[in-house]
Amino acid sequence: MSLEAALRAALGDAHVLVDPELRAPYETDWTGRFTGKARCVVRPADTAQVAEVLRGCAAEGAPVVIQGGNTGLVGGGVPAGGEVLLSLARLGELEPVDRAAGAVTAGAGVRLAGLQAHARAAGLDFGVDLAARSAATVGGLVATTAGGIHVLRHGSMRSQVVGVEAVLADGTVLTRLAGLAKDNTGYDLSQLLTGSEGTLAVLTRVRLKLVPLAAHRAVALVGVAGTQQAQDLLAVARDRLRSLQAAEICYADGLALVREHNRLSAPFAEAYPAYAVLECAGGTDPTDDLLEALAEAPAVLDATVASDSAGRARLWAYRESLTEAVNAAAVDAGGVPVKLDVCVPAGALPEVVAALPETVAGVAPAARTIIWGHLNEANLHVNVLGAQERAEQVSEAVLRLVAAAHGSISSEHGVGRAKARWLSLSRSGAEIAVLRRIKQALDPAGLLNPGVLFAE
Amino acid sequence: MSLEAALRAALGDAHVLVDPELRAPYETDWTGRFTGKARCVVRPADTAQVAEVLRGCAAEGAPVVIQGGNTGLVGGGVPAGGEVLLSLARLGELEPVDRAAGAVTAGAGVRLAGLQAHARAAGLDFGVDLAARSAATVGGLVATTAGGIHVLRHGSMRSQVVGVEAVLADGTVLTRLAGLAKDNTGYDLSQLLTGSEGTLAVLTRVRLKLVPLAAHRAVALVGVAGTQQAQDLLAVARDRLRSLQAAEICYADGLALVREHNRLSAPFAEAYPAYAVLECAGGTDPTDDLLEALAEAPAVLDATVASDSAGRARLWAYRESLTEAVNAAAVDAGGVPVKLDVCVPAGALPEVVAALPETVAGVAPAARTIIWGHLNEANLHVNVLGAQERAEQVSEAVLRLVAAAHGSISSEHGVGRAKARWLSLSRSGAEIAVLRRIKQALDPAGLLNPGVLFAE
Repeated sequence: MSLEAALRAALGDAHVLVDPELRAPYETDWTGRFTGKARCVVRPADTAQVAEVLRGCAAEGAPVVIQGGNTGLVGGGVPAGGEVLLSLARLGELEPVDRAAGAVTAGAGVRLAGLQAHARAAGLDFGVDLAARSAATVGGLVATTAGGIHVLRHGSMRSQVVGVEAVLADGTVLTRLAGLAKDNTGYDLSQLLTGSEGTLAVLTRVRLKLVPLAAHRAVALVGVAGTQQAQDLLAVARDRLRSLQAAEICYADGLALVREHNRLSAPFAEAYPAYAVLECAGGTDPTDDLLEALAEAPAVLDATVASDSAGRARLWAYRESLTEAVNAAAVDAGGVPVKLDVCVPAGALPEVVAALPETVAGVAPAARTIIWGHLNEANLHVNVLGAQERAEQVSEAVLRLVAAAHGSISSEHGVGRAKARWLSLSRSGAEIAVLRRIKQALDPAGLLNPGVLFAE
Repeated sequence: MSLEAALRAALGDAHVLVDPELRAPYETDWTGRFTGKARCVVRPADTAQVAEVLRGCAAEGAPVVIQGGNTGLVGGGVPAGGEVLLSLARLGELEPVDRAAGAVTAGAGVRLAGLQAHARAAGLDFGVDLAARSAATVGGLVATTAGGIHVLRHGSMRSQVVGVEAVLADGTVLTRLAGLAKDNTGYDLSQLLTGSEGTLAVLTRVRLKLVPLAAHRAVALVGVAGTQQAQDLLAVARDRLRSLQAAEICYADGLALVREHNRLSAPFAEAYPAYAVLECAGGTDPTDDLLEALAEAPAVLDATVASDSAGRARLWAYRESLTEAVNAAAVDAGGVPVKLDVCVPAGALPEVVAALPETVAGVAPAARTIIWGHLNEANLHVNVLGAQERAEQVSEAVLRLVAAAHGSISSEHGVGRAKARWLSLSRSGAEIAVLRRIKQALDPAGLLNPGVLFAE
């Protein structure tokens, strides 16, 4: 029996897609930069079916690429060519919220927005939020240690994961979902699999911590003179505002793109070099505290604050629409953006931001570099337009700049295929040797996400 | 050249101890329950010397047992017999506090109390605190994912670790101390080594997150009718007190032992079945909030609150002196206590506490079972007096009770040698196989802490 026949027998015909037209939506990432043909697309419904798929692939030595919401930005979820594409989209079960423990167990295919709504309906909230919330899945968020806009308050996905269920390449199921408050019995496999980008095992369910639901929110959009001034503002805000949960930065060029794409009016009478978005949330209305903090921060050139839902959404749109606006601008120009996600020590942020356009221009003179990011973590999203043909050179130049500043070449998107060849800019040879020994220990045949994390 | 000669050449004669009298303090844990002869005790001064020691041991296939402050309670830091004992006590370097990052890098041999004082001198604090603070070392705290009394607020050691330096069994040095706010470039070795109990690598330095220093504290000692009532009190406190940072529980028998050992007066006119210790800390004085919360909690039978340093110490003494008092009582009776540290789901806590004395009596009829623990995490420290000869039977009975309640056989002390044979009560066969594959990948000759975590 062929592998495809075995998979059909296990999952049903409808969930083994071989027709090129049916496969197509799974074979290209949403930026359009990464694409490859899958041998077939399989859509198991639960952990047992995932295990059956993996046993079948292991028996034939067939490589597997794992996909959640296909919102990744480093090519980690689309085939290089010829792999079985394992979509976890159908693993959408959400267990009831455990209010006593402040936790919930979710299938890998649960969408972030669905998880948030589920938690809120039970009077709690989920600590991670990001713009791709309607499509990104829990499995992908854990596999890439997603960050987003609330890391300042609640940490990244790593801080939310208290248990996982996963299937090894040989079909062995590991289930550790009790999520005890403390558990000190050997290596923490949940933490090892978090951020492993599908190279060690396939996550099928995760146990996630929930956080208190904030009854009140207030958002400020602030015009500042530059990166250093935004950091000065953040220092005041962090010091004064226990309710601070987000601090974002973007720049004049990005804001102009967003305004054009979304037909938004200017937030202020004047344009400023940089803009910070601050959000506070808590059990009591944080608006007055936020206004007071802004009044005390010398870096503020102008500011607008919104406490109502519509007003908050309007201010967030300037920051959250950047990804779409940049993508649209790239498509208009007949290309796709080169997207890089990096982290630097906070002290190096102003100089790195200042050096980026020139660094990019050095290898792609006609390119436009649009930057935004998470201010508190000095996490920059570097988007380069008009450099599709020079994507590798742009990536290398930016990542070398970041490495020279003692930064990380991936802050929250992961390494994927996009950055695998540059892993040594962030990890020592000794570390990479250890990572490979761990990979070898858990996936000795190298069937899970080949080419992801480790260049082939 | 013999291994000892090579070690002397590397470390100097004064730091390779072969004389039985000099070795003795390292060969027995402080409870007196675990003891074994070391081949020699070596005391390297830095990471490079640790690497030299491990290369020498690897060349000869000599097993190594790693020791920090020798405050462990599961025999993980003392020899089984014949190992080279690697003491990290001299790795005591504390780098200046990085106030901008809110972090500090500490040598494995730094004492917890020293780290706390260092952080406080810089206007910050360390998020973990526990009674053994004057002796426990940073390396051991990370290796065992120590918890302590502030887990409720700041999490365990796992939440504080943002980077490590470690030496593999073959002498390879892994250094990852940048502690970037986000770093998503491959498996998180810091998290893998946290809690690995010295079985994968020797931690030599760690980068630790710091927390805000609280200017004000208030402590309450509360008499309640039992475990469930203490949990009811905690629910009110958690709900009302954002400044809550500790919630401990102990019982009438433990309090009586402490009073006797420390010659303390009774905290209340009446004795109560159980006592909770609550601590709040923050930038403003939390005393009034604490008093209000106590007034609203029906579970409170009597309570006393202290805000000044001496008063707080007096109330904490009822809880923090338990370990010493129990040890003294055991020594008086000519033995050592059997000490078990377990975690159960919060809902199972009252029934497990109620079942413990009878469970112990079933295998050791003359024993006394004294229980205390960390209320928020449902983490119990079970201390059994008068059962030294039946230590294995008592351990097995208690751990099986906990496993049946879906708890963990180790909450914060680790598995060590003491519980290695019962690891399967908390981890599935598939999980243990994966743990062993990881051990094999990083320490293929099995030289680091043999017998710890995995029974031989």
